[in-house]
Amino acid sequence: MSTVIPNTGNTPQKDTMTTNSNTTKPNKGGLEGIVAATTAMSKVDGTAGRLIYRGYNIHDLARTTSYEEILHLLWFGHLPDEQELADLRARLVAARTIPDTVMQSLRSLPAETDPMDALRTAVSTWGALKIKGKPTVDQAIALTANFPLFLAAFNRLRHGQEPLESQTELSHAANYLYLLTGQVPSNEHVRGLNSYLVLLADHGMNASTFTARIVASTESDIVSAVVAAIGALKGPLHGGAPSKVQDMLREIGTIENADSWLRNAITTGQKLMGFGHRVYKTTDPRAEELREMARVADPEGFKMSRHVEERALALLDELKPGRRLYTNVEYYSAALMNSVGLSGDLFTPTFAVSRVGGWTAHILEQVSNNRLIRPEAEYTGPENLPFTPLNERKK
Amino acid sequence: MSTVIPNTGNTPQKDTMTTNSNTTKPNKGGLEGIVAATTAMSKVDGTAGRLIYRGYNIHDLARTTSYEEILHLLWFGHLPDEQELADLRARLVAARTIPDTVMQSLRSLPAETDPMDALRTAVSTWGALKIKGKPTVDQAIALTANFPLFLAAFNRLRHGQEPLESQTELSHAANYLYLLTGQVPSNEHVRGLNSYLVLLADHGMNASTFTARIVASTESDIVSAVVAAIGALKGPLHGGAPSKVQDMLREIGTIENADSWLRNAITTGQKLMGFGHRVYKTTDPRAEELREMARVADPEGFKMSRHVEERALALLDELKPGRRLYTNVEYYSAALMNSVGLSGDLFTPTFAVSRVGGWTAHILEQVSNNRLIRPEAEYTGPENLPFTPLNERKK
Repeated sequence: MSTVIPNTGNTPQKDTMTTNSNTTKPNKGGLEGIVAATTAMSKVDGTAGRLIYRGYNIHDLARTTSYEEILHLLWFGHLPDEQELADLRARLVAARTIPDTVMQSLRSLPAETDPMDALRTAVSTWGALKIKGKPTVDQAIALTANFPLFLAAFNRLRHGQEPLESQTELSHAANYLYLLTGQVPSNEHVRGLNSYLVLLADHGMNASTFTARIVASTESDIVSAVVAAIGALKGPLHGGAPSKVQDMLREIGTIENADSWLRNAITTGQKLMGFGHRVYKTTDPRAEELREMARVADPEGFKMSRHVEERALALLDELKPGRRLYTNVEYYSAALMNSVGLSGDLFTPTFAVSRVGGWTAHILEQVSNNRLIRPEAEYTGPENLPFTPLNERKK
Repeated sequence: MSTVIPNTGNTPQKDTMTTNSNTTKPNKGGLEGIVAATTAMSKVDGTAGRLIYRGYNIHDLARTTSYEEILHLLWFGHLPDEQELADLRARLVAARTIPDTVMQSLRSLPAETDPMDALRTAVSTWGALKIKGKPTVDQAIALTANFPLFLAAFNRLRHGQEPLESQTELSHAANYLYLLTGQVPSNEHVRGLNSYLVLLADHGMNASTFTARIVASTESDIVSAVVAAIGALKGPLHGGAPSKVQDMLREIGTIENADSWLRNAITTGQKLMGFGHRVYKTTDPRAEELREMARVADPEGFKMSRHVEERALALLDELKPGRRLYTNVEYYSAALMNSVGLSGDLFTPTFAVSRVGGWTAHILEQVSNNRLIRPEAEYTGPENLPFTPLNERKK
């Protein structure tokens, strides 16, 4: 789960989100510390603050690879050479097409529809038309190729604009921006979005990936698994709240106001948006990369967000000694996505545009060596209640 | 997971599905024996072959209560008195309506669409239009009320018939049958389907319910959680294969052929459809109820299915001593659903018509005391691979 918003208030999340303990306490609930599956996709080392994709440190990949290379790494197990990359690109480009029935479904949704609901519905409709049989790499390619198309089409339709045709020569990131705006994007914007897509593509057994693997473990189809994952990513405790970081920064307003706002928030137990993560007990390596990208992409905005980050850490040290919170992947994602022109309610769907690569890779991994994921529950209700027929039940 | 098909062949399911051991071996994978959540909804006692809904034994409920009473029990915590039941019925009846956009989506799907995909898409579309904010009982009522409408509408459309209007005075089970056929169903059919809906409404931490709870645990919405659950139920290892029991019985063909067919299947490790369950190590209490219902509903067909059941158990004893397999809920479900006039590819969606009651109750329980469900993974891939830029990678 890559983007937990910490809760410094009074919900059950509180303790894990705000302590710096490295001990595993399975009895915390929520399967924390319980190994639910094995995977060769990615390793999240929360103690060392390290993220690995199939052997490669995320810091080596973030600004040197295209999202398409990462897809190749996740789906096929190794970074592609130039020919392999060209082949995969061609397959992705060839898959860029929205069936009429899906477009009709997107057209029928009201403008105020949550884009995550539109994406979930478009993918479900697409699957009803296109998907038969067991999950395959071809299906993973087609699904991943179409996420940007579905979202951009919905975004244009809700603003009264007609959807656009994909541009064959554009990369995955560039084509997404083109489909949204109708303009070939700047190299700077493409680089920024591409790095974001690389950084968010996979993250161990996060809630949406786990959901996708459970669905796949029943031998259901790839779209059922991905649709389920979209639903999980929508939740604010997972991927559904990056735009709230910007709301918080706007509420703080000025650098001068940061100290008193944060002091009040921390002492009254308010949430600090974009801080904390269940797994990382130190800095999130993705947040480090995003911080540098945000610094370049929006130097003015960066001053404020960096100041708030530094003051929050210092004040937490002062006011809640022993607790540590670090910025998570959401904190600088918001700034970055804003800088490439995405509106706030497209942040989480754009997270999905990236993560679908990881979801589909995990689904293929799950079905390659499947066992149904079916845990137990502890029953806490009564037993042996005597049954009374309806007409004898007390009023 | 209520309807696992055992695998007596060579997949990883094999060992758990076919042994009679009561020991918990968490290292079997698939979270077997791992407590993932607490719940007061239902208790599945696999050793005693006992199923409890909020304190009541399923044998006390199966043929004495309406599905609406079970919904009240699950959502509100107690069996309703007559006034409470009338109130809930009125709320369910008032919610029976398909928005134009959902009907349009159902009309646009090709006739050969898997009804589970049609249901998943209709529910997702409905949620995009109707659902805002945190899960509520009102939402659970509206969703549950509409499952039969979505399915019956799709079923009529794919057969070139116009969807019908719900009948206010009909119960949940009766209205579903009416919407499918256009005829007010016989009391016998209503009783049969109602008992099926009661029996399948909840079953501990099965894969689809677990999926729904994970999605809800991210603070996502009720429809995202239910859509995810539909996807999990679709899988043949969960709810997606009851019609295969009938295929098997048809393949066996005659009572005379049963012995040699079963002997061959067991010795060559073929699947026996409708036998075995991860949790039940003895008879599944739902299968016992369904057996009696099938005996009444289709006495002719029953002779064959009962004979195959008895011979399979005897031959397993002879050929695989120490292993025991019992019929699961799918075995006699198929016969029962067939007897009320449902076609094979409506069996799993009709399972969903029942289970949505349990899913929504679990979602409400999850959000009432939430903690994000986010396990860990064991990383099995390489670490510290040296990064090589694209143009230096070997061909």
